[in-house]
Amino acid sequence: MIIVIRPNSTQAEIDHVLERIRELGFKPHLSQGEHRTIIGVIGDESQLQAEPLAAIAGVEQVLPIMKPYKLASRDFNKKDTVVAVGKVRIGGGSMAMIAGPCAVENREILDEIAGHVKRAGANLLRGGAFKPRTSPYSFQGLGEEGLKILQDTGRKHDMPVVTEVMDPRQIPLVERYADMFQIGARNMQNFDLLKEVGQTTKPVLLKRGMSATVKDLLMSAEYILSEGNPHVVLCERGVRSFEESTRNMLDLSAVPNVKGLSHLPIIVDPSHATGRPDLIPSMACAAVAAGADGVHIEVHSCPEKALSDGPQALLPPRYAEVMECMRRLAEVMGKTF
Amino acid sequence: MIIVIRPNSTQAEIDHVLERIRELGFKPHLSQGEHRTIIGVIGDESQLQAEPLAAIAGVEQVLPIMKPYKLASRDFNKKDTVVAVGKVRIGGGSMAMIAGPCAVENREILDEIAGHVKRAGANLLRGGAFKPRTSPYSFQGLGEEGLKILQDTGRKHDMPVVTEVMDPRQIPLVERYADMFQIGARNMQNFDLLKEVGQTTKPVLLKRGMSATVKDLLMSAEYILSEGNPHVVLCERGVRSFEESTRNMLDLSAVPNVKGLSHLPIIVDPSHATGRPDLIPSMACAAVAAGADGVHIEVHSCPEKALSDGPQALLPPRYAEVMECMRRLAEVMGKTF
Amino acid sequence: MIIVIRPNSTQAEIDHVLERIRELGFKPHLSQGEHRTIIGVIGDESQLQAEPLAAIAGVEQVLPIMKPYKLASRDFNKKDTVVAVGKVRIGGGSMAMIAGPCAVENREILDEIAGHVKRAGANLLRGGAFKPRTSPYSFQGLGEEGLKILQDTGRKHDMPVVTEVMDPRQIPLVERYADMFQIGARNMQNFDLLKEVGQTTKPVLLKRGMSATVKDLLMSAEYILSEGNPHVVLCERGVRSFEESTRNMLDLSAVPNVKGLSHLPIIVDPSHATGRPDLIPSMACAAVAAGADGVHIEVHSCPEKALSDGPQALLPPRYAEVMECMRRLAEVMGKTF
Amino acid sequence: MIIVIRPNSTQAEIDHVLERIRELGFKPHLSQGEHRTIIGVIGDESQLQAEPLAAIAGVEQVLPIMKPYKLASRDFNKKDTVVAVGKVRIGGGSMAMIAGPCAVENREILDEIAGHVKRAGANLLRGGAFKPRTSPYSFQGLGEEGLKILQDTGRKHDMPVVTEVMDPRQIPLVERYADMFQIGARNMQNFDLLKEVGQTTKPVLLKRGMSATVKDLLMSAEYILSEGNPHVVLCERGVRSFEESTRNMLDLSAVPNVKGLSHLPIIVDPSHATGRPDLIPSMACAAVAAGADGVHIEVHSCPEKALSDGPQALLPPRYAEVMECMRRLAEVMGKTF
Repeated sequence: MIIVIRPNSTQAEIDHVLERIRELGFKPHLSQGEHRTIIGVIGDESQLQAEPLAAIAGVEQVLPIMKPYKLASRDFNKKDTVVAVGKVRIGGGSMAMIAGPCAVENREILDEIAGHVKRAGANLLRGGAFKPRTSPYSFQGLGEEGLKILQDTGRKHDMPVVTEVMDPRQIPLVERYADMFQIGARNMQNFDLLKEVGQTTKPVLLKRGMSATVKDLLMSAEYILSEGNPHVVLCERGVRSFEESTRNMLDLSAVPNVKGLSHLPIIVDPSHATGRPDLIPSMACAAVAAGADGVHIEVHSCPEKALSDGPQALLPPRYAEVMECMRRLAEVMGKTF
Repeated sequence: MIIVIRPNSTQAEIDHVLERIRELGFKPHLSQGEHRTIIGVIGDESQLQAEPLAAIAGVEQVLPIMKPYKLASRDFNKKDTVVAVGKVRIGGGSMAMIAGPCAVENREILDEIAGHVKRAGANLLRGGAFKPRTSPYSFQGLGEEGLKILQDTGRKHDMPVVTEVMDPRQIPLVERYADMFQIGARNMQNFDLLKEVGQTTKPVLLKRGMSATVKDLLMSAEYILSEGNPHVVLCERGVRSFEESTRNMLDLSAVPNVKGLSHLPIIVDPSHATGRPDLIPSMACAAVAAGADGVHIEVHSCPEKALSDGPQALLPPRYAEVMECMRRLAEVMGKTF
Repeated sequence: MIIVIRPNSTQAEIDHVLERIRELGFKPHLSQGEHRTIIGVIGDESQLQAEPLAAIAGVEQVLPIMKPYKLASRDFNKKDTVVAVGKVRIGGGSMAMIAGPCAVENREILDEIAGHVKRAGANLLRGGAFKPRTSPYSFQGLGEEGLKILQDTGRKHDMPVVTEVMDPRQIPLVERYADMFQIGARNMQNFDLLKEVGQTTKPVLLKRGMSATVKDLLMSAEYILSEGNPHVVLCERGVRSFEESTRNMLDLSAVPNVKGLSHLPIIVDPSHATGRPDLIPSMACAAVAAGADGVHIEVHSCPEKALSDGPQALLPPRYAEVMECMRRLAEVMGKTF
Repeated sequence: MIIVIRPNSTQAEIDHVLERIRELGFKPHLSQGEHRTIIGVIGDESQLQAEPLAAIAGVEQVLPIMKPYKLASRDFNKKDTVVAVGKVRIGGGSMAMIAGPCAVENREILDEIAGHVKRAGANLLRGGAFKPRTSPYSFQGLGEEGLKILQDTGRKHDMPVVTEVMDPRQIPLVERYADMFQIGARNMQNFDLLKEVGQTTKPVLLKRGMSATVKDLLMSAEYILSEGNPHVVLCERGVRSFEESTRNMLDLSAVPNVKGLSHLPIIVDPSHATGRPDLIPSMACAAVAAGADGVHIEVHSCPEKALSDGPQALLPPRYAEVMECMRRLAEVMGKTF
């Protein structure tokens, strides 16, 4: 950690900063230049995070040198983590191709969609039973009934299932039926929820919040990892921006960015990122070429009757085409699904 | 609702759109121009929200005409809502001047700070017992012990208290000790939490999410209102932006914007918005002139030893000066506190 | 164009709106529902753009139905435009692989870099002679001397050259030496500059502004096209965002988005978008898979001595590897370079 | 400047960094901790800006300590700069109240508007003769004829005039008629334009770009100052954000932020920031309370017939009311106009 002292600070102010650092058990290293005075703080920086050094009179800025996450960092684990969901492997060259409707609506429709995506090559089935909806008047999901349908359909089509958990109290229920928890973008900083899925042994798909930096995303992963659950898969799903023609802005650079900073796998969700079926195929292909460990796409056999997010769902034949293109790109990138 | 048809759509596609609208119980109103065909949908638009009309082949865009919130809207209540927290009135010319430390740390410090802010004119005491921290390694709050200290200190200094609730399971506990719930920015779309504070009768301070639009904020308020709790106060606290010299970007235009769209009071938190004690006083004054129904400021008597967010806390003497300036501005604006 | 009338407007207000529309030579089409009154405006909407209908009392919102650009729109030209720069074709399956240093520094270095990128497969040479620098104290480019070096080096290595023009007065000079004008992000809305390159016959590479929407970008292309120059190639180069770990946020969805709205080719610049050599290769590959008509990468043989933007330049061997990967991906996408 | 070395760098890499620093004429100061190695660079940091130290192998990050602007910085001039435009003083307690239509349309309308705003207390008249319009098909301004009308009207009503210059070639013409140049948001980084107004002696109103940070704004001011023109007034006019209900997001914190970093005056333009007449009055008042040195408001006597930006113009009676409120707030803030 480096502490930059304000120009024209008094010697007493500087001495007070040095004293505070020593009080906290660290060794200050003073460097007084012609224009500026800076103080290096030697010791385990992570111990200093909570300390409001920036609040001391005379301090202009505090520059952290080390990453604020540990277990999520590449330094902690040089090798790529591979997360297993049932027999599916995510990371290390194996891709998760997740598909399904936004919400579980009923047994027949889910069965139909699952058949289509399985044939196209999807290896994980998705579908929401608890839906975080902007409006209290929108369809909020089928709850446990939806979870049952999802589990049964996954088994029938031999695909592990992933579904969202929104509230810590839903964890035992969702754990019973799902093979992987999904933490949605709106809950990326619901810290109690993170801690409690961190106390289970089920894999977790953690979606990036709408205004989360890559660092924020890794800090949220750290919450899960620090509770003992190492099975975390990250998901880039677009962030808020001024561009009004897409639902969000897909930040594909997060893929190599995360891979440099962390050992955790990261997949991409072009459906929520763009909200537009005409853009999803290109962004799905781009995700593969960017090095993603999987692609998550919403598919519905009758989008105009979907109870949630119909307008962004791909029709099954279009999904099959996109999968074909992704398969050929994955081959170039040395990956398989 | 207006449906714009894609150029070059077939008559069959247009007929299918008309049929879907009728199926849903609405009356379509076709208007075919030289360049474009549009369809007006007559009826209670709120019933149509969940319907994915945009997913129908041939539909280019769906333009909603009505607001998606009802109970929160100015149409629902022409008169400004006044929320009572103990003997404090928020709205309708009365301002909430909320002050206190970021976190409750111990009885002595809180008592000292409370004395200072009370003398300066604050009428509500704040302090966190459950802290949503980006890092799992940061101080997470004192929990129930913190709530007790907060309640006792508020009573001693004759100020109602407001504190954050992060998890629906904490509601009964927080309800016992606090006079007002705070829903933090990270939980603005924690819909279960919103619903359950909506089932209590305690007033709720709902902070705007870091990437929430004003419409999103009002939709979240609608969740609380629709469960039966009308005592909602909104809070603008800055949003994420590209500007790197401030913690967030304070969107003061949200104040008159909300006042045009809604009857709910709205206060401003310049502490979290800027994260910089040198900017907080100006932004606090600007908030008063912008028409805010209150101002929320973090104050600490020893910021450099604060366990949370010390660098953004004002010292008590500076707070007293800002309060003096705000008082004179409030007078010009025809308000009191 | 659709005009939504405020609820509770008077009949006199509505009549006044109707009258204004007729005065402007258009036909209003009134539709009064139970909840809302809307007015459709029939006629050539583009004639109405300048008219401040939204300023009329009683008007709540004005919803345009048609695109504000014409010559740039897909409706104007169903077929993809192919732009020729010397013997290089951009669009319609042919890709522009543009490479070179940020700035032309001297003859020897440019020659060395040009040799490297040519061998790796680049088909267009770039290099700045006029540099838009944030600081007045930074290197501002060699001016005409730089243009001469660029032209000579391009000829020697048989590559057409592209270079930035920042000021309308530089156009005749740049036109003499370059095969393609570049309009930088900071000048995307320098309308005089756009008009005047529009009066030449040289192809123009138009970069997206840092906070420009896709619509803004197409409006700026319209300025060039409407002056008579049809040879416009667009370039996505990242936009400003809250993410602090990359220079900008690359919006790859702009590629299919533009392709749906316009017939113009669009290339991608991952160098300026990310500012990080560790992310550029993945984003270059992703651009190819997203359907871009070319990729623009800054390459320098000694980044640590570069006079401009050294930290974001790729070393020649790394560039050659990325080109190899892009070539194999382009093949999958049915494209060549 | 502080250079952070990557963990696991070799001694040879570190030696190479030290050597480069010495080659550039600076003194490195090595500090090797248990976890990290950092190098302080002693000397005039401004000389190092152009050097791509970050491009050297082994360097993780380069942390500048000093501000990249000099003449614009508060360190350069402790006292607030006061800019004179005719007899109007801007800064140091005197406020510029700038008003007028977006564009000069004709003599009669401008005369009428000028009369209104003068009576309300405005002290500077604005009006565009060269208009930067997003669409090539929109009204582009009257050019020299507009400048003449503006000058005559200003003289008649005894108000100095300010008008936009978009192209360096317009400078001599605009200089002849205007009392103050305006550089619009879209030209904030049109560096040739900045340099050339910097070579005149006329005051310059420099508007913040739509995605410019406060630092970027000060760097652009530095371009003008470094050419010898010290008469620079900054203007906050909103930045791009995800909020869709306002044209831009007004960043009022830029006012105290700039005042801490620079000695230059800064005014606020709530008209372009919000684009909404219902929000302008509150934001104008907030600007005064935030400490702005002036407020710029667009006023039109018949917004629905305005040739540019009619929907955001205030009617003269509303402007007079806002001026009255601002006057009382200015008094509280110890300012006059």
